[in-house]
Amino acid sequence: MRRTIKVVKIGGNVVNDPEALKMFLSDFARLEKPKILVHGGGCEATRLSAALGIETCMIDGRRVTDRETLDVVTMVYAGLVNKRIVSQLQALGCDCIGLTGADADVIRAVRRPAQPVDFGYVGDILADSVSESVIAMLLKSDIVPVFCAITHDGHGQLLNCNADTVAQAVACAASRITATDLIYCFEKPGVLADPADDSSVIPEITPANYLQLKECGAVSGGMIPKIDNAFAAIANGVRHVIIKSASSLLAPMSGTTIRKPSE
Amino acid sequence: MRRTIKVVKIGGNVVNDPEALKMFLSDFARLEKPKILVHGGGCEATRLSAALGIETCMIDGRRVTDRETLDVVTMVYAGLVNKRIVSQLQALGCDCIGLTGADADVIRAVRRPAQPVDFGYVGDILADSVSESVIAMLLKSDIVPVFCAITHDGHGQLLNCNADTVAQAVACAASRITATDLIYCFEKPGVLADPADDSSVIPEITPANYLQLKECGAVSGGMIPKIDNAFAAIANGVRHVIIKSASSLLAPMSGTTIRKPSE
Repeated sequence: MRRTIKVVKIGGNVVNDPEALKMFLSDFARLEKPKILVHGGGCEATRLSAALGIETCMIDGRRVTDRETLDVVTMVYAGLVNKRIVSQLQALGCDCIGLTGADADVIRAVRRPAQPVDFGYVGDILADSVSESVIAMLLKSDIVPVFCAITHDGHGQLLNCNADTVAQAVACAASRITATDLIYCFEKPGVLADPADDSSVIPEITPANYLQLKECGAVSGGMIPKIDNAFAAIANGVRHVIIKSASSLLAPMSGTTIRKPSE
Repeated sequence: MRRTIKVVKIGGNVVNDPEALKMFLSDFARLEKPKILVHGGGCEATRLSAALGIETCMIDGRRVTDRETLDVVTMVYAGLVNKRIVSQLQALGCDCIGLTGADADVIRAVRRPAQPVDFGYVGDILADSVSESVIAMLLKSDIVPVFCAITHDGHGQLLNCNADTVAQAVACAASRITATDLIYCFEKPGVLADPADDSSVIPEITPANYLQLKECGAVSGGMIPKIDNAFAAIANGVRHVIIKSASSLLAPMSGTTIRKPSE
């Protein structure tokens, strides 16, 4: 495989908005192959839980996943959202296949320890478990893998994982096939020096300026684990991580790029 | 591929019963490859519909599928049931991948005409649409395809199909790869000459004795479309169709076999 693999992750905010999703998928269908999509869940799971009288409990932005909630997220993420995306991409001429980690045993996870917080059936991905041979087989057949964030433990237990982490693990596995870029799409045009100013995109983050950006407060809150995740991807073989707006997937030179120190 | 492909279909009665499903999957995992599983939905969709206040309407045993019900069956069949089966088979050492017809564009359907009965988002499979190349690619990689009965129309619309028909269409496509047997597993040990007597299994049905069996009333009701379906499979390349109990998948010489007239 000569061309760079693009692993693109979209979050719940795009999944929640049918028009935004349609526009994004139209761009994604036009993105040069080889490519992989990883999608978050959006608010449908919370809505379905509420309709079923199941209380939603979030701790640090993560969903506490008891047995009933696991059924809900399996239905919504692996069923409704994944198959809607797959059928829409097919209509756009983009041949693709929806996957959980259990399918073709492509990603394994372990249930997160109950201490300090018991998240229930939440999984932490076993980085080395991601099967680059399955990914390579699909890409070679021109079939785009579309991952939701449900995985399994290999012993019959499905687990709810974090979509950002799935994207990172898949990108690291893809980088064992050929050069791979990981593109996190979200609602902002990139990492902003001033959160109130969309034109203040920081074009590049390196380990050196990351420290400064954290110290001066430009990078804070939920952006810190995202960028830590990006550096972990870089350390494990991914070429570039790009954080950009879902509405500018095809725009070159947009968003914030996280690179290796040596580049 | 030298060995016969076995396409096995299980119905809702097995899916509904966790213990029966576990035993069936344990047998299925031991069945010699190459093999394919097609599963029905079971009563979870009706249960979820009821919990959400969506009325279930069945006509001639088929679910009328409005937009809300389509979401329900997509969640239950493609999400909950399919991924539970996939993760359980993985735990049994049977590498497999869950599929709807939209995945890898493997089965296309058309929405059934609204006359004489408007079933909503119910699809009729386009027999020639089933991709034997995708099936061959998976079987060659030792990955067992596990189909639910959700397909798509290629224009972005998911459709609810009949699992018996999915199994038949998949078996016909598989028969273009190599010799293929289609095995319908259900709650009885086979087609019975006397419905009250489980030991009255008719070992073989040919076009000649089928007429007699219908005339004398031994074959009636819901068994007629099942056997018509079986003959359609035989006419389109499938070698044998076997109707047997889900609990005797591995028992040789069990159930009722439907063969070509010439055999």
